[in-house]
Amino acid sequence: MAKKNALYAQSGGVTAVINTSACGVIESCRKNSDKMGILYAAQNGIIGVLQENLIDTSLESDIAVANLRHIPGGAFGSCRYKMKDIADSDSEYKRLIEVFKAHNIGYFFYNGGGDSADTCLKVSQISKSMGYPIQAIHIPKTIDNDLPLTDCSPGFGSVAKYVAVSTKEASLDIASMAASSTKVFILEVMGRHAGWIAAASGLVAKNQGEPPHIILFPEVAFDREAFITEVKNSVEQSGYCVVVASEGVTYGDGGLLSGSLSEDAFGHKQLGGVAPALCTMVKNALGYKYHYAVADYLQRSARHLASKTDVDQAYAVGQAAVEKALTGKNAIMVSIERNSTSTYGWSLGEVPLSSVANREKKMPRSFISKDGFGITQEAREYLLPLIAGEDYPPYKNGLPHYPKLQNKLITKRCKQWTLP
Amino acid sequence: MAKKNALYAQSGGVTAVINTSACGVIESCRKNSDKMGILYAAQNGIIGVLQENLIDTSLESDIAVANLRHIPGGAFGSCRYKMKDIADSDSEYKRLIEVFKAHNIGYFFYNGGGDSADTCLKVSQISKSMGYPIQAIHIPKTIDNDLPLTDCSPGFGSVAKYVAVSTKEASLDIASMAASSTKVFILEVMGRHAGWIAAASGLVAKNQGEPPHIILFPEVAFDREAFITEVKNSVEQSGYCVVVASEGVTYGDGGLLSGSLSEDAFGHKQLGGVAPALCTMVKNALGYKYHYAVADYLQRSARHLASKTDVDQAYAVGQAAVEKALTGKNAIMVSIERNSTSTYGWSLGEVPLSSVANREKKMPRSFISKDGFGITQEAREYLLPLIAGEDYPPYKNGLPHYPKLQNKLITKRCKQWTLP
Repeated sequence: MAKKNALYAQSGGVTAVINTSACGVIESCRKNSDKMGILYAAQNGIIGVLQENLIDTSLESDIAVANLRHIPGGAFGSCRYKMKDIADSDSEYKRLIEVFKAHNIGYFFYNGGGDSADTCLKVSQISKSMGYPIQAIHIPKTIDNDLPLTDCSPGFGSVAKYVAVSTKEASLDIASMAASSTKVFILEVMGRHAGWIAAASGLVAKNQGEPPHIILFPEVAFDREAFITEVKNSVEQSGYCVVVASEGVTYGDGGLLSGSLSEDAFGHKQLGGVAPALCTMVKNALGYKYHYAVADYLQRSARHLASKTDVDQAYAVGQAAVEKALTGKNAIMVSIERNSTSTYGWSLGEVPLSSVANREKKMPRSFISKDGFGITQEAREYLLPLIAGEDYPPYKNGLPHYPKLQNKLITKRCKQWTLP
Repeated sequence: MAKKNALYAQSGGVTAVINTSACGVIESCRKNSDKMGILYAAQNGIIGVLQENLIDTSLESDIAVANLRHIPGGAFGSCRYKMKDIADSDSEYKRLIEVFKAHNIGYFFYNGGGDSADTCLKVSQISKSMGYPIQAIHIPKTIDNDLPLTDCSPGFGSVAKYVAVSTKEASLDIASMAASSTKVFILEVMGRHAGWIAAASGLVAKNQGEPPHIILFPEVAFDREAFITEVKNSVEQSGYCVVVASEGVTYGDGGLLSGSLSEDAFGHKQLGGVAPALCTMVKNALGYKYHYAVADYLQRSARHLASKTDVDQAYAVGQAAVEKALTGKNAIMVSIERNSTSTYGWSLGEVPLSSVANREKKMPRSFISKDGFGITQEAREYLLPLIAGEDYPPYKNGLPHYPKLQNKLITKRCKQWTLP
């Protein structure tokens, strides 16, 4: 049987370790070169497949590939692009088959979150619905940790570590200055619908009264009065108040604290402005001097502070995707399973993509403290191993060494195609 | 001659390495215990001296003191407090003498920036004007790098490294997503009147067209039209645009891009909101999808990413302050001198405090590119050694180990005193 080629693509918001998964995929393909042909990478996710912008990864040196393990961002480019349902319009799928055929693609590895799992599932269905044999394997990736049926998602552990460390460091700053200066500090972190990232900051507070004093989750309806009371209590008892707020925190009726600005390709609102909105409330109600930080992309690209657990898992899911493809699997996502022992351990499993796509795993209520402003011991036990270990990138002249790949595009074989 | 005791205090905005200087002071005092008595630390800067809230540092173990080398924030508390001029009102100075006398203080080490140098200078003048013998030595500290007569200031190298690394990492993120998502990213950094911190991001761009594409300095009058044109050019040429903006960027007439919110004890305006203001301009003029981050306190407390050069210098200036005091010096600031050789080297010097207080060192025009949006080779050569080297704190369970001191207050000997 002639060897089939493979295609890897990155999708959705990138993370500090999505390239670590790419490294796992490429190195695993190279090890299995007797069974698998060339590994292509799509430029900018599924858009690159549709437009036949394919990168020949075999032209990259082993060292360049090994470097991917410690480079943040998406080395091949990512995208936000929603495929139409095959029942509504099959033009995109016909085009995929055209490109797959032209390059003898038999394996499709899609590295993304919930929306991307939907794309990967749709691609996997081509086999049955359109007769082109393709094995589509989803490689989990999301800083939001909201993919279901996996204990955690690569990308999350590192953003969790970044947020926990930043909260700890900023809290020491505020604590030193509170007597005569800033009394309230608000850190806005990512998390549209799930509060996992904000929750990670709770690892810093080991004892009652320690910062962060207030965590605001999207899962808990925002209560302005309770919030202001809690800020006041913290300042009166501790001298200052550190708040970590999810960007997606809303009032009970779903109303945003901050104005929504625009929508992305999936109809998600682009959020922002929760921190200044909260500061304004504090200033008006209590008059305290405040400061706020918006971590935004810094948090999800902070490879300099990656969690070793996260890096190891990101590599492993990429590697396993290739191995599972070679055993004939299709329409699955590689999952991370937590061993049910007292010390943390993990292994890999797989789950059907149809159970993953378009579902969001929110924080269980049992992870959030009764007053809604903190995390429980159960949450702490879940989160702590995910930020464990450091995995520093190499540095040159004071800056991390993040070299670029060649990313050489192959000659196109299909006619030009315009996105619908 | 009976040994005199010493008093150390931290002042102004804290940094990632102000405690490293404290470590240098304390360890140096311990080494010179034959010549110097007890070292007290004031709680919350000069306010702690005035209120006789003094910490006995001799109660801290050698290990606890050594740990200070890698703990951000101000371990003894800092303050923003402006002393009156001695000619206008001498009540604060009489009180200082009362406290100094009560505890046999002969040495005063003040660790701060330009405003704090003013306080330290005023304290040094007590000897002559009020007949109480005190030697006041200023230990430089400011993330803003705006202290004159020193090549750089401890605290700056680490914030510079943080901003450069964060810019690099976030730029890789934007670059991966720009084809179908965010095209403009704006990072707001500190710097009211001097653009040193923003300038550090320029170390990331090694070749034309590399991010950051635009740096906005307080030293360059903001030109909205030129800015928008440059954003458009960057997006058209590179596919995206990364902007690093000083919080203090203003229009030619001094008008702020963002509304000013309130003033601190020195009459400095509390700034904020430059990034959203710029994003709104971009959105309105060009319609690009944008994101912004506000680094705020995260940048100045990021000990996890400290520059080794900065850590070494911060320790050395603390150590040298004690040594200089023991040679009889008064009213000086320890300074850092750059060796005039082709490879970077530094040594310590001293400058009269009267030449330091209340003066700000801005970026020279020769450090800013002709178009006002970048840095020159001269700036690059100045900045690069300051971010060199990594100096990671130890970690426990995934978080940096930042233990607290005991900070035991000594029994008061003076009557209670209320701040004027």
